[in-house]
Amino acid sequence: MSDAQKFIDANLGRFRQELYEFLRIPSISAKSEHDGDMRSAANWFRDRLQAAGLEAEVRDTPGHPVVLGRWNGAGDDAPTVLIYGHYDVQPPEPLDEWVSPPFEPTERDGRVYARGSADDKGQLYMHVKALEAHLATAGSLPINVIVLAEGEEEVGSENLVPFVKQHVDELACDYVIISDSNMFAENMPSVLFSLRGLAYLEIHVKGARSDLHSGQFGGTVVNPGNVLGKIIASLHDESGRVAVEGFYEDVLAWDEETRERIRSLPFSPDEYRRELEVDALGGEAGFDVLERLWIRPTCDVNGILCGYTGEGAKTVLPNKAMAKVSFRLVPDQTPARVAALVRAHVAKVAPSGVTIEVVELHGGRPWRTNVEGKLVDAASAALEAAFGTPAVLQGEGGSIPIVVDFEEQLGASALLVGFGLPGCNLHAPNEWFALDAFEKGIGALAGLYENLGA
Amino acid sequence: MSDAQKFIDANLGRFRQELYEFLRIPSISAKSEHDGDMRSAANWFRDRLQAAGLEAEVRDTPGHPVVLGRWNGAGDDAPTVLIYGHYDVQPPEPLDEWVSPPFEPTERDGRVYARGSADDKGQLYMHVKALEAHLATAGSLPINVIVLAEGEEEVGSENLVPFVKQHVDELACDYVIISDSNMFAENMPSVLFSLRGLAYLEIHVKGARSDLHSGQFGGTVVNPGNVLGKIIASLHDESGRVAVEGFYEDVLAWDEETRERIRSLPFSPDEYRRELEVDALGGEAGFDVLERLWIRPTCDVNGILCGYTGEGAKTVLPNKAMAKVSFRLVPDQTPARVAALVRAHVAKVAPSGVTIEVVELHGGRPWRTNVEGKLVDAASAALEAAFGTPAVLQGEGGSIPIVVDFEEQLGASALLVGFGLPGCNLHAPNEWFALDAFEKGIGALAGLYENLGA
Repeated sequence: MSDAQKFIDANLGRFRQELYEFLRIPSISAKSEHDGDMRSAANWFRDRLQAAGLEAEVRDTPGHPVVLGRWNGAGDDAPTVLIYGHYDVQPPEPLDEWVSPPFEPTERDGRVYARGSADDKGQLYMHVKALEAHLATAGSLPINVIVLAEGEEEVGSENLVPFVKQHVDELACDYVIISDSNMFAENMPSVLFSLRGLAYLEIHVKGARSDLHSGQFGGTVVNPGNVLGKIIASLHDESGRVAVEGFYEDVLAWDEETRERIRSLPFSPDEYRRELEVDALGGEAGFDVLERLWIRPTCDVNGILCGYTGEGAKTVLPNKAMAKVSFRLVPDQTPARVAALVRAHVAKVAPSGVTIEVVELHGGRPWRTNVEGKLVDAASAALEAAFGTPAVLQGEGGSIPIVVDFEEQLGASALLVGFGLPGCNLHAPNEWFALDAFEKGIGALAGLYENLGA
Repeated sequence: MSDAQKFIDANLGRFRQELYEFLRIPSISAKSEHDGDMRSAANWFRDRLQAAGLEAEVRDTPGHPVVLGRWNGAGDDAPTVLIYGHYDVQPPEPLDEWVSPPFEPTERDGRVYARGSADDKGQLYMHVKALEAHLATAGSLPINVIVLAEGEEEVGSENLVPFVKQHVDELACDYVIISDSNMFAENMPSVLFSLRGLAYLEIHVKGARSDLHSGQFGGTVVNPGNVLGKIIASLHDESGRVAVEGFYEDVLAWDEETRERIRSLPFSPDEYRRELEVDALGGEAGFDVLERLWIRPTCDVNGILCGYTGEGAKTVLPNKAMAKVSFRLVPDQTPARVAALVRAHVAKVAPSGVTIEVVELHGGRPWRTNVEGKLVDAASAALEAAFGTPAVLQGEGGSIPIVVDFEEQLGASALLVGFGLPGCNLHAPNEWFALDAFEKGIGALAGLYENLGA
């Protein structure tokens, strides 16, 4: 066992307590009333980087700050690795569905429950502890390291891309490592071969000059709520495909090797279904569940608001309706083109008597990587050593838009190696992170740095 | 000019100020925090009946109280008229769209703006002043009178039907007069020949065990928001007809005379459209605007709530969605049968992977009356005398479910004669009542009592 690993084993209890301090800060980037918490979280993270032995500072952006850490002592021959993560979290609502409070980390059944535990504070902090393990035992790292933690991942990373562009020299690196994803299953570590992209839209339907009485006017006025239903319904056909003209034109037909690799993974659709407590799964005909998740695009309603939604019967004919609708994208789709196609589609579907506005809230390009080469090899070996089982290659249904920007701006290859688990309630009530994955994962990351420096 | 009319003309300023007192009480029956205001409004109204010269009392029900007034001095040969109205009002939301506060009556351009000004406090109070005019000048009324004001009209009159059933003898009458509707146009008084009914439903779609991450699960789970869109879209066909199987089976094909009477009314669809500030009207193919409003059924979304509806982009795959959907009914539809048809329809449309619940919130039967006979004649003559122009017969798109119950329980004929005006924002922000209609209408009602007693 390496000295770094021994140090990790000896300090796990402290690592956990430090993480829980981090999780107690409600750093919700979407809500301006938490701006102070965002600053506190950034400062807290900077202090922990410094305590681990890195130079670190909080850097302002037009939005929430970026935390930047650096250790340059491995010399010019050693590779430079940029470790990216985010210290902001999703809003915790609906609050009444949390078993324990979202910002009071609570251990139950080998897990810690808290907003941000898996996404992404827990995973980001593992890197800090893996770096500390090397620095505390060897006094040095096998690689040069830049740590970049942003506070706007959950709201679209709007200021991060300009930040990276403005600091291309300062952020120059060979590899970008990101831990903001899941393992394939418990004790089945994985490396990602792809990420889906995202086109997140808001559709507004506006009708008459004001809300109207549904009796006095009903039957003569185009109802924005009914139109919105029609628009939403028109987005899919009966086979579960997205029915927007041109939508599949840019969708890559993946190679048979990748599809075979997906199909060979141990996965039970029935168990997945039962865990979700539904009587049937949904999705696009002609593809398996994991294919639907990783290599096929989607269209999902994220929210709808129209008219009177309180208690009882208000006989109002509403004059506006709004839906948040997002599309997960796969190579080679782009959010801009999908938004344009949806805009054209909605214009065709909507009747006269209402006006339509489609607002682009957020977008991110899909990503895929070359699974052969030093980067994936180094990760696979480190994961296998730490978890005692071979790592698998998997896709990821979620989006980390910054990955494509990192690769383009910095000319570096990205490695996505994550330690969440399926069902860990990302973006939902009762988010959790497995303590076993937290602990083994720190060792795996320490090993990964070694392998990359070798 | 009659003494009663002279009295009315001399006291109009006071009548208005009294009405404004009534309008200042926020008697919102739908919200339990206004229970005290409901009681205050009932007591206030009882006091005004007593001041006018009637016996009056507040009678408890399991819900909001009923106010009952009585004057029996016209003798057994004179007919007994039950005047019905309601002292409760709709919730005023959205508040920020009111030009002046909803419970601070404000005069602008010959109108008083306030919640309840037209629906129904203003119209109900006109009867009290017409009664007062007779009693103050002649010391008697030409008819026996029962005044029945309820506090639950806007929430379904649940306790009124049992109240009427339990007090059939006490409420025995020849005619029921209700002023809770509109004139056809400014200075065009009218009598109603029909009312639409109502079936108000809430549709709940429930999916997975909890909200999910739209990236981690999107494409494999049936999304309740998308299903709700599909359900809403399925409720109409392309011609604007309700696409629920069996829905039109009970719909009466009205006689050509009625349709001709409707078509002969002075009405400009284009003006109506412009007033609503839309580029086109909607509705069922094959019928005129007024037919769509009065003699054809509808299906309107009243509200939708699903997922995340706040600011920004939350990538949640929601696990539930709700829509309030209501149907305006025409003879001979019934709310129970329509609810059953919709329930069967939704069950057919919804896919597996979600569960559906359809809740009946509120129902009312449609009504129509015989337009030949003493009752309509008496009203038409009184309206013509007061307004100086012949009254027209019109339908009404809204619902007053209690009308059918009154006729059935009391064996009486109902007369619906109202003084609101089209566009007066019933159930919407900036509800208003024309002062001219308030003033002439009091004279018309005083004349109506005379004609019925003659």
